[in-house]
Amino acid sequence: MNRNIELKKYHKAMEHSYSFGAFPTIELLKNQPQKVIKIYIHTDMTSISQAELLDDLCNRHTIPLEYNNRVVEKLRDKENCLMIGVFEKYKSHLNASENHVVLVNPSDMGNMGTIIRTCVGFGIQNLAIIEPGVDVFHPKAVRASMGSLFQINITYFSSFAEYQKQFTKRKIYPFMLKGAVELGSFVHNQEDRFSLVFGNEATGLDDSFLEAGVSVYIPHTHKIDSLNLSLAVGIGVYEFTKNTIL
Amino acid sequence: MNRNIELKKYHKAMEHSYSFGAFPTIELLKNQPQKVIKIYIHTDMTSISQAELLDDLCNRHTIPLEYNNRVVEKLRDKENCLMIGVFEKYKSHLNASENHVVLVNPSDMGNMGTIIRTCVGFGIQNLAIIEPGVDVFHPKAVRASMGSLFQINITYFSSFAEYQKQFTKRKIYPFMLKGAVELGSFVHNQEDRFSLVFGNEATGLDDSFLEAGVSVYIPHTHKIDSLNLSLAVGIGVYEFTKNTIL
Repeated sequence: MNRNIELKKYHKAMEHSYSFGAFPTIELLKNQPQKVIKIYIHTDMTSISQAELLDDLCNRHTIPLEYNNRVVEKLRDKENCLMIGVFEKYKSHLNASENHVVLVNPSDMGNMGTIIRTCVGFGIQNLAIIEPGVDVFHPKAVRASMGSLFQINITYFSSFAEYQKQFTKRKIYPFMLKGAVELGSFVHNQEDRFSLVFGNEATGLDDSFLEAGVSVYIPHTHKIDSLNLSLAVGIGVYEFTKNTIL
Repeated sequence: MNRNIELKKYHKAMEHSYSFGAFPTIELLKNQPQKVIKIYIHTDMTSISQAELLDDLCNRHTIPLEYNNRVVEKLRDKENCLMIGVFEKYKSHLNASENHVVLVNPSDMGNMGTIIRTCVGFGIQNLAIIEPGVDVFHPKAVRASMGSLFQINITYFSSFAEYQKQFTKRKIYPFMLKGAVELGSFVHNQEDRFSLVFGNEATGLDDSFLEAGVSVYIPHTHKIDSLNLSLAVGIGVYEFTKNTIL
């Protein structure tokens, strides 16, 4: 990749993206330093401890760091963002011997970031996204993940069949309102790898997923239509990883 | 309340607020019809089924309904909002014989809405907010709750001590990173009422809450600082209401 990149507002077709703010930028530098192209800082940034940490991380990995208000003000989407990491977008591969979360057609940036952070929090290191799906490298998703995006493997697949072809020998649990078994009423054998599958925010999973594995429902009252997607994923992952978090 | 109210952008001091969009407005009409002052619809709204449902609900409760693009365009915060419910803000009282969620100094509108929806989904009908805390009647919170705000009792308290003074004879479970017991490792006696207590998004609960009851932690990896507040509440409520959702 040509590291003399053009600094303009993010769009999906670009080969680079941005981390906005201190927290995601520090996570970027700690976890994916080889992908960082440059760090830009606004002179309004007054935290000496953050400046020292940044300096140290950039020095260690010979990453250029520049104070440049014009660039920060041009790229950022919120006034309180005083630091931007410019990084090369990258591909990662899912680990076949670990557990997965699979999101079918997720559409909301904020949900995506929260889901990534929650997965990392519960020790899930592999996330499959079935297309069409939200761009995980969009700065909004990076920020909503609080930088935990840089700690997880994410791969896009053109269809769920495509995902299944590559990852056999695992138990598939589609989460559906019509699910056959209640979450928490059964125990997953921890010797098997699992894939927890969740549908789109508005439409959920279609009926074909009833046959894709052991379909699961999270019981809730009839006063709401469904749980928020990030809540459903969080509760599912919490229940499946219970007693395994060290 | 004078029902000839001034229609301007929402601010906290107003005695009325707005539901933006079809879903929250229909929930408002179904659950708090006596608080509805007027419904405004934009002529771009093309859904006949929604129009009929609205007409029916407004007729049944003699609520005025007006097609008025100027008002909708003036009040709404997003272009795709084609329907606005104007309602009188109200106070509700917590039920002492039911379970509660207590939020100490919550600050995020979106989180608040998601938390309300999740509480309603798991059968929690009573939410205490310790001040300072976000305004639940802000249209952003109403929308994020998808209107489930209108199905739950919410009361503000000046301090946690104030809350405790009014609600004795219940088990208090503060959720804290330093909590004494792991969520899921113990069973709450369903004959006791519970109050699940959660701190602010950024700061959590201070150490004084360690003494307020049985403090609980949700185990997670050290790769993240903490779970998102709405996730922590959702997982806590899910675990405590297990096997009680009908």
